[in-house]
This record gives sequence, C-alpha cells and structure tokens, in this order.
Amino acid sequence: MLSALEFYFDFYSPYGYLASLRIDEIAARQGYEVIWRPFLLGPAFAATGHRPLLDTPLMGDYVAHDFARSARLQGAVFRLPEEFPKAALAPSRAYYWLFDQQPENAKKLAKAVYRVTFEQGRDGTQPELVADLAEPLGVDRKQLLTAITTAEVKERLKQETQAAMARGVFGSPFVFIGDEPFWGNDRLEQVERWLQTGGW
Amino acid sequence: MLSALEFYFDFYSPYGYLASLRIDEIAARQGYEVIWRPFLLGPAFAATGHRPLLDTPLMGDYVAHDFARSARLQGAVFRLPEEFPKAALAPSRAYYWLFDQQPENAKKLAKAVYRVTFEQGRDGTQPELVADLAEPLGVDRKQLLTAITTAEVKERLKQETQAAMARGVFGSPFVFIGDEPFWGNDRLEQVERWLQTGGW
Repeated sequence: MLSALEFYFDFYSPYGYLASLRIDEIAARQGYEVIWRPFLLGPAFAATGHRPLLDTPLMGDYVAHDFARSARLQGAVFRLPEEFPKAALAPSRAYYWLFDQQPENAKKLAKAVYRVTFEQGRDGTQPELVADLAEPLGVDRKQLLTAITTAEVKERLKQETQAAMARGVFGSPFVFIGDEPFWGNDRLEQVERWLQTGGW
Repeated sequence: MLSALEFYFDFYSPYGYLASLRIDEIAARQGYEVIWRPFLLGPAFAATGHRPLLDTPLMGDYVAHDFARSARLQGAVFRLPEEFPKAALAPSRAYYWLFDQQPENAKKLAKAVYRVTFEQGRDGTQPELVADLAEPLGVDRKQLLTAITTAEVKERLKQETQAAMARGVFGSPFVFIGDEPFWGNDRLEQVERWLQTGGW
C-alpha cells in the first residue's frame, strides 16, 4: 500500500518554495508522508527549450506578479533573491549527502534553505550558508563542506536529476502519487483530492 | 464600477475550452459579465519562444494526460481533434465579425466552435463548419464565409491579437479583472475569489 508521495523541486523555484510550505501538511491530512527530491531545473529547461520564467519575454512580468500574489494567497512571506535564478548546486548536493544518513534532518535543511532564500532573499546557493543552516541540526560544517565537493556527491545529484527527467519531471514543483504526476503549486489541491478519492 | 471580465482564449486551446465552460457562470455568481476575446496563440508563442504544449519535449505526455484529467475533474467531455494544434483563423475572424453586430450570438458561436472541436474532435478551423454552426443563430452563411475573407476582418483579428499581447497575454486562457491578470484554467478559482473579495 502506497504511503508516501514524492515531491520534486528546485531550490531556486519560487513555486517549489510555496509548495514546500504546504505539501507535508496536505499529505499528512490523508495519512501520507512526503519524500523530498531536489533536482536541477537547468537540464530540464535544456530539454523543453524553455527559459527561466522571469527571463521569458511577455511572461516575465506576469510571473513576478503571480509569485507574490500566490504567496499572499497562502499567507507566505515571499522575497526574491537579488541574483535569480541560480543553479542550486550546494544545497541540492548537501541534501542528498545528508539524506543518506539522516533523512529527517535533510528535510529540515531543505526547509531552512528555502526559508533563507525566499523569506530573507539571501543567496541560498552559497556552500557556507548551507553549512550554517546545517549546524543547528548537529551536522559538522566541515564535513558537509567537504562532502559536497566530492565526485561521489556531485554524481549523486546528477543522477537524481536525470532520474527525475527520465520519469517525466520538467518543472518545479512536481509531485508523484505512485505514477500519477502533478505539476505546479497550483495542482496541490488536486493532489489532496487524489489522495482522498483515489483518483477521478 | 467594473462589471465585466475579459476572457482571452485561442479556439485550439484545450485549457481555453475547459475555462470557457465555467467562466460565465463563475462571473455571474459574483454579478459580472464576461467579454470573450479570441486571439491567436501562434504569435504569442513566437514571442515567448515556447512551442505548443504537446510538441514540447518532456512536457507533451504530461500535458496530454492533464488535459483529460482536468476535463474529468470538471465533468467535461474532452476529445482532441486529430490534427492539433492548428491556427484557428476562421472561427476567430467570424467571431469578431459577428461580435460587432450581435455580441450575444458571437459568444454562442464561440461556444459551438469549442463544442465541435473538443467534444466531437472535429476540425473547428474549417470555414464551412463555422458557417454551419452560425446558421442556427440566424446568420447568413454566405455572408459569413465572404466576410472572413475580407482584408478588414483579417486585419481586425490581427489587431486583437496584437492588442492582447501588448496587454501581456501570452497564453490561453487569460482573464483580466480590470488590470489584474490571471493565466490558466487553473486560475479560475482565484478569479472567483478575487471577484468576491476585491483582491488579496
């Protein structure tokens, strides 16, 4: 019996951030857990031919407006980092490194990264900042900073990103209930309904 | 005092079709009318660099799945025309030609075009079919077929499409409440909430 959803996201995705604030609670209400799976949007954009939303002609202004409006609707603080978007290598690598040892702490780290990035508008891609956020979780900062430079951890993120795309993930956030795919923060109401009803 | 929304759509947009089935009712519940404004997605795609959804690598399968799932969720029949997408010149031109004389009938014609296209999967871009659908509304079919070949009517659609893009429309459906923009069938719940609350 299925008991967990999978939540794919990029650490520099505003809609991923907004979904991250709700997904665990939505799943828990229906008795499910959520496995968080960061990946890099860059390779997915390379495949779809899309550009980051804010850089897309005609769409940019709307999307900036919708980020803020969507945040207000769900009562979330939202602030765009000055340099945006960026490839979120350090937090994504740190996530998987930590996940293999302490999955709960990996999720806490992910939440902390999203918080500094989109609540405070800081640069959540900086390794030192990621290490700062991991320290209160009992993670040795030197160990983390070393780990994310190893070929093994780099390769792990690459493989996770490729596996996500092989599964059909092309945007952030992206949720799977079993094999049922849902793309976008604005599909979370459908995710809850699917969990409740078993589909329609 | 604002009393009407504007509903922009492309006649070959499945999400536009799904929104067309709900938008008048949603607006009416809050005491608003809806002005329907067909436009051509082609020029908007040229500006954003996007391709039609089904032809976008990685996204195509998801989108085909989501068309059908979204339709089931709102209890709508959905069938994709064999040749898809196409530039919906004839129905869009016929719409504006009729709109200038009989706005209510223009909306009825638009609904009929969407119905044959996405309920029956027929080719709703065919001038003869558009004329067939207009006839029961009391429209002379020869007059319609002639009108949509005139430079004036062609130019009208071109200008409507350019005006839509100048206003920021880049996808279908797209709704404006005054200057407040909403993109997507999945924003209609927000549209209703905005009408109820005056915004958030």
